[in-house]
Amino acid sequence: MTSETELNRLAEQLPAWLETSRKESRHGQPASYIPELAHAPGDALGIALLDAAGREVTAGDSRLSFTLQSISKVFTLLLALMDQGEEGVFRKVGMEPTGDDFNSMLKLELVEPGIPFNPLINAGAIAVSSLIRGATPAEKTERILSFFREVAGDPTLTFNEAVYRSEAATAHRNRSLAYFLKDNEVLDEEVEPVLDVYFKHCSVEVTCRHVARMALVLAMNGTDPLTGRELVPRRYVQIAKTFMVSCGMYNASGEFAIRVGLPAKSGVAGGILALVPGRYGIGVVGPALNEKGNSIAGVHLLQTMSEAFDWSMF
Amino acid sequence: MTSETELNRLAEQLPAWLETSRKESRHGQPASYIPELAHAPGDALGIALLDAAGREVTAGDSRLSFTLQSISKVFTLLLALMDQGEEGVFRKVGMEPTGDDFNSMLKLELVEPGIPFNPLINAGAIAVSSLIRGATPAEKTERILSFFREVAGDPTLTFNEAVYRSEAATAHRNRSLAYFLKDNEVLDEEVEPVLDVYFKHCSVEVTCRHVARMALVLAMNGTDPLTGRELVPRRYVQIAKTFMVSCGMYNASGEFAIRVGLPAKSGVAGGILALVPGRYGIGVVGPALNEKGNSIAGVHLLQTMSEAFDWSMF
Amino acid sequence: MTSETELNRLAEQLPAWLETSRKESRHGQPASYIPELAHAPGDALGIALLDAAGREVTAGDSRLSFTLQSISKVFTLLLALMDQGEEGVFRKVGMEPTGDDFNSMLKLELVEPGIPFNPLINAGAIAVSSLIRGATPAEKTERILSFFREVAGDPTLTFNEAVYRSEAATAHRNRSLAYFLKDNEVLDEEVEPVLDVYFKHCSVEVTCRHVARMALVLAMNGTDPLTGRELVPRRYVQIAKTFMVSCGMYNASGEFAIRVGLPAKSGVAGGILALVPGRYGIGVVGPALNEKGNSIAGVHLLQTMSEAFDWSMF
Amino acid sequence: MTSETELNRLAEQLPAWLETSRKESRHGQPASYIPELAHAPGDALGIALLDAAGREVTAGDSRLSFTLQSISKVFTLLLALMDQGEEGVFRKVGMEPTGDDFNSMLKLELVEPGIPFNPLINAGAIAVSSLIRGATPAEKTERILSFFREVAGDPTLTFNEAVYRSEAATAHRNRSLAYFLKDNEVLDEEVEPVLDVYFKHCSVEVTCRHVARMALVLAMNGTDPLTGRELVPRRYVQIAKTFMVSCGMYNASGEFAIRVGLPAKSGVAGGILALVPGRYGIGVVGPALNEKGNSIAGVHLLQTMSEAFDWSMF
Repeated sequence: MTSETELNRLAEQLPAWLETSRKESRHGQPASYIPELAHAPGDALGIALLDAAGREVTAGDSRLSFTLQSISKVFTLLLALMDQGEEGVFRKVGMEPTGDDFNSMLKLELVEPGIPFNPLINAGAIAVSSLIRGATPAEKTERILSFFREVAGDPTLTFNEAVYRSEAATAHRNRSLAYFLKDNEVLDEEVEPVLDVYFKHCSVEVTCRHVARMALVLAMNGTDPLTGRELVPRRYVQIAKTFMVSCGMYNASGEFAIRVGLPAKSGVAGGILALVPGRYGIGVVGPALNEKGNSIAGVHLLQTMSEAFDWSMF
Repeated sequence: MTSETELNRLAEQLPAWLETSRKESRHGQPASYIPELAHAPGDALGIALLDAAGREVTAGDSRLSFTLQSISKVFTLLLALMDQGEEGVFRKVGMEPTGDDFNSMLKLELVEPGIPFNPLINAGAIAVSSLIRGATPAEKTERILSFFREVAGDPTLTFNEAVYRSEAATAHRNRSLAYFLKDNEVLDEEVEPVLDVYFKHCSVEVTCRHVARMALVLAMNGTDPLTGRELVPRRYVQIAKTFMVSCGMYNASGEFAIRVGLPAKSGVAGGILALVPGRYGIGVVGPALNEKGNSIAGVHLLQTMSEAFDWSMF
Repeated sequence: MTSETELNRLAEQLPAWLETSRKESRHGQPASYIPELAHAPGDALGIALLDAAGREVTAGDSRLSFTLQSISKVFTLLLALMDQGEEGVFRKVGMEPTGDDFNSMLKLELVEPGIPFNPLINAGAIAVSSLIRGATPAEKTERILSFFREVAGDPTLTFNEAVYRSEAATAHRNRSLAYFLKDNEVLDEEVEPVLDVYFKHCSVEVTCRHVARMALVLAMNGTDPLTGRELVPRRYVQIAKTFMVSCGMYNASGEFAIRVGLPAKSGVAGGILALVPGRYGIGVVGPALNEKGNSIAGVHLLQTMSEAFDWSMF
Repeated sequence: MTSETELNRLAEQLPAWLETSRKESRHGQPASYIPELAHAPGDALGIALLDAAGREVTAGDSRLSFTLQSISKVFTLLLALMDQGEEGVFRKVGMEPTGDDFNSMLKLELVEPGIPFNPLINAGAIAVSSLIRGATPAEKTERILSFFREVAGDPTLTFNEAVYRSEAATAHRNRSLAYFLKDNEVLDEEVEPVLDVYFKHCSVEVTCRHVARMALVLAMNGTDPLTGRELVPRRYVQIAKTFMVSCGMYNASGEFAIRVGLPAKSGVAGGILALVPGRYGIGVVGPALNEKGNSIAGVHLLQTMSEAFDWSMF
């Protein structure tokens, strides 16, 4: 089936599938631990899918704004790899899934040498934030925003001030993680400046369409097919996609790989970035989360699509 | 590059690569916890690679006999899926990597509902062994052997009596795991009969060439290309390959995915089964293990090959 | 206040106190994990208290039969100390409370050298059972029974066959613990013979009056004041009393020390052995357990008495 | 033996015992995690013992200055109990030993409701610091200092500025603990003001003679026998002594109870406060620590004395 045929069929069926998946939302609820996120509409569900020729299919609440949250971790990882190289990054974070909650500290205490197991759990992403080049937190944030804008193809992308403030004010667990990392000598810098960078990139505001574009760049191995520009070296994209498969959906990543089989990364605002290698970038948003912290309706919709079109990479 | 061209290049370079990788063996050592395994030659290294047209490339100690050990878990999982269906299997084992050692009991105690996190850790594989149909342990073992023989294309395949006895006599930790599973109501059957089945399928004796053939069946989604027979439904192979990526190399699976990027499963006798989807089945043996329990030279050789031919599926 | 005055006051008030405490039973329930124990009357509560002059005060269901369960661990520890000396015992078990459940395996896996933290958790008591001298399990059991009979002053004391069989048949978690210990080289003997000894001494059947007598021997530092015979060296009693304070009430031992302040050991059949050093031995039974596994009414009654008479040793 | 006779014998033998114990120092070393503590003389050992009649025996480096560190936790607990009552304190900290390291975070994550297990581990002591009454950190610190001065009988007692600064600058792990507590809603106040109070009371500078006096007040159930003033209600002293037995020597408390049998509290500067109930207060200092964080020579000396004079309370 050509991409075009597939897209036509998808465009036809997506509205019905989306409404079926939307019903799953009632089994979950928006994240409450960041106060600002709790206001999100619990039954919203939107999707955008983009192919290399620029064809786009959208459905549902595809214009709903939300913050990237953990989805941003994929891109700060890419930037850190470009800034520090593989060796520089993997000195500070490992390559293994944890089997624990995304904000767990167990393995930092129990497993030598006490570096975060991977860059997509909170501890790892905080360590990655510290690896972004920049003389000041502001400069780091500026470089991150620049990179995000480039990948998303939108020079106006920026962080949501209210969400950033809400996160910064209530992120006791992340502070706890960061000081543990400091104690384990994972962070060379002070904790608060690192966290400021982290909270800001988590708070970047997008719609599904931005996310689909960001995903497409990964699907095309680092080159934006719409501009032809190579934004990230292919090897780094390969690393990021591997982590998305092994750790992208928190400690439900294994199940997602079995049921959906695509590289993906979720965020607690309900967003999911997913990609069909070589073909599509996908952005989904559905704020109601399951107990693992993933969009309950979003996962359902991705599974429906992956099964229908046999997208699993396995 | 066609398969044939690639195979020719591989045949040419493999002997030199193998000797380079063999040197890594001195940084590891054969498993000692099963006494019979400790006798294996620490600096041995062999490989066999087979494509769908039946072309085979071998190098080094490709005729060395060894026992499948954990490699067998992939195939008992397939048989259990054929016997019980997805639902029947996933009622007893989960889908997530653990981040812990392959014989760890932490998550059985700490994480509800106390079922093994995945079918490739010891706890999970013991649970899977209990799911194989058969009125008696002997009958289960017979069905497993039949299936292994079919997939390996060798009707003489059987288990090594001395290794089996050595395992059965010293497997205190596995007994501990099994009784914990029994207590958690994961095992419906008695512990010793289940373990007997488990020890026997771990003790099946092979060479790299068998393993390459077994891997090829997976690479071709369940059909043996040399006979044309469909041995396993494609969906079950997909599940198995997904687990091989997320959990196949113990708690070094994440690193293996980043560095090699192929579905693979290792065993403590030093074997590794790996596959290039749609193209090759690969069997490797190198008894010297690294601290994670994987063949140190075997992993090195697979990484060399994957990088040279850009085989990563990510 | 002399012992006699105190006993008179106690005899007067105990019936009312006991009825008040008995009401707590409805917040707990008899242990269910050993099927035979689940039949115990949930609202039973009995007590016996004995002083060095042989004066006895009883109240409530003081003639109710029950099995010692974990209370027996104090006396197998004493016998093991007499058999192997301090050094022989502390080579196999530690001296620290765990903070974990009594059947937890976490620390066996996480904390080197993998010996049980103390002799009163299940893992430790199984290790202690293996240290009792005797050529066969039957001989060990015989020696244990002899010792228990001597301390309890009742030559007819024996184990309850139905409870023993019920325990032996369902003790998957204890088997799991024991095999873990075997793997950690804590047990020199085979697992099943050790467990047979363990299940039998846990199943010894008593009433509160036996327990009071056993406690009195400890209160008098190893000498039975009613016969004048020294049954246990004082140093070993000191060790046992220390463990009773730090670990005797499972992972509620700290709270019991704060609220009651007496050396005590509970069992899952609802028994509690407690003592007022130099003065009284106390036996309590109340089968309804709280979530920590201690007799809910029994603890309440002991606290009432300790507060009223200022018995805390702290 | 009367106190006087005992003291005479003690005065005679103590110098020799102390020199024997001092030799143990070479198996340990001063704490290095607070830079300022690493400068302490590793082979120092001093002791002071005081009875209710004001008779004092000293030996070795009894005039060496050191900071209370964790010894202070006993007295902030007492002050918090006086400020908030039992219920107010035990809403925020538990009563159980942990079996883990003093700065471990495992149980905060694993065990509901996520309050510190006891007031003598770091997490618990930080929670206790937050319970001291006072409108500002400075006022709390002032109240703590006042209380410490009263108990130590020295109005000039104060904290060591250099140690305080060293602690505050390097206490990443304590900050991590405190933010975890904040996230678990154990701390009502902000983290940094609480930590400021905590670091200051840990940095109070004393000699063994101060510590002996502080211990004597506890030995006499809260009344200073030298002034006749009741400084702490007896019940609160009872609670404190119970905790000293169950948790006072970090996760070597069980062993200390078995081998020494006295309520005691150690600090990482090498101090130990111990007491013989109703009789003596004891202060020891020996900066070389064993792997559990207790003064290696100090524990040895206390064991020698306790065995010689049969001081164990068990």
